[in-house]
Amino acid sequence: MRPTMNDVARAAGVALKTVSRVVNGEPGVNESTAARVREAIQELGYSRNEGARMLRRGRTATIGLVIEDVGDPFYAGLSRAVEESVIRHGYLLLTGSSGEDPGRERELVRAFCDRRVDGLIVIPAGSDHTYLRPELDAGTPAVFVDRPPGPGIDADTVLCDNAGGAALAVGHLLRHGHRRIAFLGDSPSIFTATERLRGYRETLGELFDERLVTMRPATLEGVRADLDRMFALDDPPTALFTGNGRFTMTTLRALAGRWLPLVGFDDFELADLLSPGVTVVAQDPAGLGRVAAELLLRRIGGDDGPSEHLRLPVRLIVRGSVER
Amino acid sequence: MRPTMNDVARAAGVALKTVSRVVNGEPGVNESTAARVREAIQELGYSRNEGARMLRRGRTATIGLVIEDVGDPFYAGLSRAVEESVIRHGYLLLTGSSGEDPGRERELVRAFCDRRVDGLIVIPAGSDHTYLRPELDAGTPAVFVDRPPGPGIDADTVLCDNAGGAALAVGHLLRHGHRRIAFLGDSPSIFTATERLRGYRETLGELFDERLVTMRPATLEGVRADLDRMFALDDPPTALFTGNGRFTMTTLRALAGRWLPLVGFDDFELADLLSPGVTVVAQDPAGLGRVAAELLLRRIGGDDGPSEHLRLPVRLIVRGSVER
Repeated sequence: MRPTMNDVARAAGVALKTVSRVVNGEPGVNESTAARVREAIQELGYSRNEGARMLRRGRTATIGLVIEDVGDPFYAGLSRAVEESVIRHGYLLLTGSSGEDPGRERELVRAFCDRRVDGLIVIPAGSDHTYLRPELDAGTPAVFVDRPPGPGIDADTVLCDNAGGAALAVGHLLRHGHRRIAFLGDSPSIFTATERLRGYRETLGELFDERLVTMRPATLEGVRADLDRMFALDDPPTALFTGNGRFTMTTLRALAGRWLPLVGFDDFELADLLSPGVTVVAQDPAGLGRVAAELLLRRIGGDDGPSEHLRLPVRLIVRGSVER
Repeated sequence: MRPTMNDVARAAGVALKTVSRVVNGEPGVNESTAARVREAIQELGYSRNEGARMLRRGRTATIGLVIEDVGDPFYAGLSRAVEESVIRHGYLLLTGSSGEDPGRERELVRAFCDRRVDGLIVIPAGSDHTYLRPELDAGTPAVFVDRPPGPGIDADTVLCDNAGGAALAVGHLLRHGHRRIAFLGDSPSIFTATERLRGYRETLGELFDERLVTMRPATLEGVRADLDRMFALDDPPTALFTGNGRFTMTTLRALAGRWLPLVGFDDFELADLLSPGVTVVAQDPAGLGRVAAELLLRRIGGDDGPSEHLRLPVRLIVRGSVER
């Protein structure tokens, strides 16, 4: 049912070779003939099978992106930036969300590699990436974003300054006179969560008290229970540091009515419209995506220098939730 | 560099045909031999080229999704639902954002079709889709979501009840005593914006006043200027109906300090945490994505019945921005 090059040749009244020359942008066809061929292509709706062509060339001009959840604004912003960068360079993007499930991450990576993507951008859910080694050895570059790969895998990484950001947040609260600062963060199995814990702990020094730390998935019931437990202490927290955007929003909801000075890791839409506005340590999800895509495109282009480990800066945005 | 089936055969000490049988799940290999082959596959990191295999079968098990902007929470939620549905059925997803640019939409669709996706899900930016006709004629199904295709294209559509939702919003404001209700919506070239205007207008009847309507991209300066103009009228608006989530957030920001009862079209994260909470007409982005994906998979599976035109319901969520 699909029109072929032969159909185009017949409609334009030219030889098959002439159509092929026009389609492939080769010289040797005069302009009026080429115009006739293009017109026939347009009329018939002929389209070259790029998949077949790519396959013959041993490249697919496709990049695979595995993220945690495209429904989460942080990863959506990162995705959009990756998409912008790779599409501008003529690549298409296969995407999938792991939902923090290492098995799902592996299946997606496997499926992308079976389609012979030219490169991978992975926000890893798992901590074992030895399954990727044959693919890396076969020359498929991979860039890990937001979190590094598991041990024994030598690949590029683009991370944000997690510990430094936590230090910024805690330092800000200390300067505002707080000594009892709680940390509500994601599960310890997640790299960014433990790095932020490290920055928090190092900045607090001897003020650190493990009873003020909770690390678990950001459910409303869980956060409520943790806050209740901490508020019942003889020396309860006077301020909170929430470990990511999801946690900040869940904590604000769990506090409902109560109030405690708070700094969140990650900026989020409407943080400025809440009252008071929420002071945050902002990373740049679009920057992470863009830098990762550019690094991957360089690797695909043949750059086989040693692995690069980039760390993007974060910044404190003061909005009132500590300072009012 | 990539291990071949021959390498696997050599490592396992079996014939090439035996490896092929195991890889393709064909019978005639005893279990201990099959185990040896699978072990060799694992060890060498052999991976079958699915792209090549698919190409031989004339299918790619790939679906193309063109959305407006994956960085927008509404479309991110829709994307995630599409992804869930298609991946569960063994398909991979090529994605791209049009950014409301019809040329970009067309390029993405073209690129996806050149890769011979098995089907398309499109949130159209443009209003002319005749370019898709050859592809539809060649048997590639397409489902249009959120907005219908341009004239002359017979394809499935999954929309929400835009006019009905606007009627819900305006009816709610009327019941609270408002007679001067402004509408701030997206550009009239966007289907959902004009449908919501229609619902607004029909519900207001003789109360309709075109000086209380503005339709344009949701920039902060634009919304501020429109509000200033309306507030300067002899009979200014006493309530607002904002035409989508982006508009609601921009309008809240533009009002900063001032206050006006408001209903927004589209729910958004934190709408309940603002004070007062924002009353909205909520559609179900995940539902749109899921229904569209299921419809497309049915088409790919051979359902060639007449085009279906599904309209998903919306609902009013009361939170205080009108009622307090």
